[in-house]
Amino acid sequence: MPQQLLLHSPLDMHLHLRDGEMLQKIAKESAYSFCGAIVMPNLTTPVTTKEAVIAYKERIKEAIGEEKFEPYMTLFFKSDFDRTFLESLKAHITAIKLYPAGITTNSFGGVSGFDIQTLQKTLQAMSDLEIPLCIHGETNGFVMDREAEFVPIYERLATAFPKLKIIMEHITTKASVEALERHENLYATITLHHLLITLDDVAGGLLRPHLFCKPIAKHPKDREALLDVALKAHPKVMFGSDSAPHPKEAKETCGCAAGIFTAPIALQMLAELFEKHGSLEKLGDFVSGNAKRIYSITPLSKTVVLEKSPFRVREHYNGVVPMFANETIAYIIKEVING
Amino acid sequence: MPQQLLLHSPLDMHLHLRDGEMLQKIAKESAYSFCGAIVMPNLTTPVTTKEAVIAYKERIKEAIGEEKFEPYMTLFFKSDFDRTFLESLKAHITAIKLYPAGITTNSFGGVSGFDIQTLQKTLQAMSDLEIPLCIHGETNGFVMDREAEFVPIYERLATAFPKLKIIMEHITTKASVEALERHENLYATITLHHLLITLDDVAGGLLRPHLFCKPIAKHPKDREALLDVALKAHPKVMFGSDSAPHPKEAKETCGCAAGIFTAPIALQMLAELFEKHGSLEKLGDFVSGNAKRIYSITPLSKTVVLEKSPFRVREHYNGVVPMFANETIAYIIKEVING
Repeated sequence: MPQQLLLHSPLDMHLHLRDGEMLQKIAKESAYSFCGAIVMPNLTTPVTTKEAVIAYKERIKEAIGEEKFEPYMTLFFKSDFDRTFLESLKAHITAIKLYPAGITTNSFGGVSGFDIQTLQKTLQAMSDLEIPLCIHGETNGFVMDREAEFVPIYERLATAFPKLKIIMEHITTKASVEALERHENLYATITLHHLLITLDDVAGGLLRPHLFCKPIAKHPKDREALLDVALKAHPKVMFGSDSAPHPKEAKETCGCAAGIFTAPIALQMLAELFEKHGSLEKLGDFVSGNAKRIYSITPLSKTVVLEKSPFRVREHYNGVVPMFANETIAYIIKEVING
Repeated sequence: MPQQLLLHSPLDMHLHLRDGEMLQKIAKESAYSFCGAIVMPNLTTPVTTKEAVIAYKERIKEAIGEEKFEPYMTLFFKSDFDRTFLESLKAHITAIKLYPAGITTNSFGGVSGFDIQTLQKTLQAMSDLEIPLCIHGETNGFVMDREAEFVPIYERLATAFPKLKIIMEHITTKASVEALERHENLYATITLHHLLITLDDVAGGLLRPHLFCKPIAKHPKDREALLDVALKAHPKVMFGSDSAPHPKEAKETCGCAAGIFTAPIALQMLAELFEKHGSLEKLGDFVSGNAKRIYSITPLSKTVVLEKSPFRVREHYNGVVPMFANETIAYIIKEVING
């Protein structure tokens, strides 16, 4: 009998489900294998109101249909959110996501400058109300330096709001990994693709648009640092796929959009990676245990049965090309048990 | 009357003219505005024999037709070239180009390892016969580090063969610029695009396949270092476009090939760049004077009259998309005078 691996209540702590037609096309891919996900609020019109959160959650529920899956909603950070507003929102959201202005897809309404005084009111209220702050931490500097340049901002915020849980989203650098150790209230999500690729895979040979993402994949020494904390399920890191679908045409034309679609193959590839490094027993904490503790959530009960058996990844899912399209990977999802 | 600028006998000291259909499509673009070019030997079957050099030169002459243009031929370096062979070639070639194996388009037959003893026979013969050595200096390391990692190899060769003129081709890093100063016999070519772009332009916003090249564009501090020596026409640097055409389809699909096609706009954009930095009076040395001295060549007489007048770059030239396609640039070629 092929080797099996059981993952209990896997969580994707950073996911783009998009909206409209794309939501319909891809939501089930996440809802099938994960029991829940932190859903990013950077829609074309960012999610900044209670009504928008509730309505978006409804659309997601509709799109996933019967699947047992909890969309953990987030709000798009604005520095004028006050305590009363956030209190009224608290029951509907799991976190607030802060984007520096213009740094990635639909982030133009984000924050410009990180003056503590400007952010004080909102961040203090979040800290008091125990609402975690998720940050896309990049400056608008040189593409390979953006995240490392942002680390001092993470640190300034962590110091100014010591009770606020700050999640450094989709970290890609050694600098961010090191910052985790310096501040009790800094946490991080790590994607599948940043554990697997470096800039060499994107642009070292031919140019590979389906591996182009933000933050861009970095240096091998950065990938090593990420692998180091992920494979031991360091208590402050969680899996967050940052699975970010774009239509095939938007990826394969000039001016290709950033984002890698990993939802359909994330758990399978994580199993392959963790097995390769002899760390399979840590995978449960990386994809579920740590997130439960950090976010204080009790996820829906779902067991994913992975089996070691070669699987050829589909060319596309409703017109969205996944990572490893047409390639053969080592694990398949054999069964998903609700419970 | 619009501002005019005269360039005498501009030379492109690093050019890919390809072969067959592509040669027919693009050769005239270079032959129109340059009086000559060092022609790279990395055809599908690399140019490694006297017969191949002569035949390729004939095909180039045929493709350029009436244009007054000298193709300075090169041989694809092999470590078993001996003195007798090189003596028989000397009248037909201007330089020998060395590619590390597999580092760029059609370089699979290149050199693996840079053991001085293995290269001794050929390099000593080249030194004795005063045949310059052009090198594509990249290791097969991480894409952003490859050139800097190669600098010690440049230096080892420069030290071992002090009379051999070594041209570091299409340099992209501060590390290479600095090496110029340490060895009398090290020279360099610099492309237009590496004076203009960094990795930010390739992958900092959307992904731009038409700006993808090898060596890949680097950090802003590297570009500054290149600009510094180019704008003052440092006596050891020359313009070499590395203009490298690929069919539109090969640039705009997944797995896009490396190479930027600049031949039709190179002189115009160099004028714009040098003017912007108040260095117009140095442009003649950068695109001609330095090359004549370094290579000891007497180029054909040709005067290119540039005029400051907005010009919209064509979308493609026979299916090859140039840099700045559909954009408006500041200079046009008003006239080319043979003499």
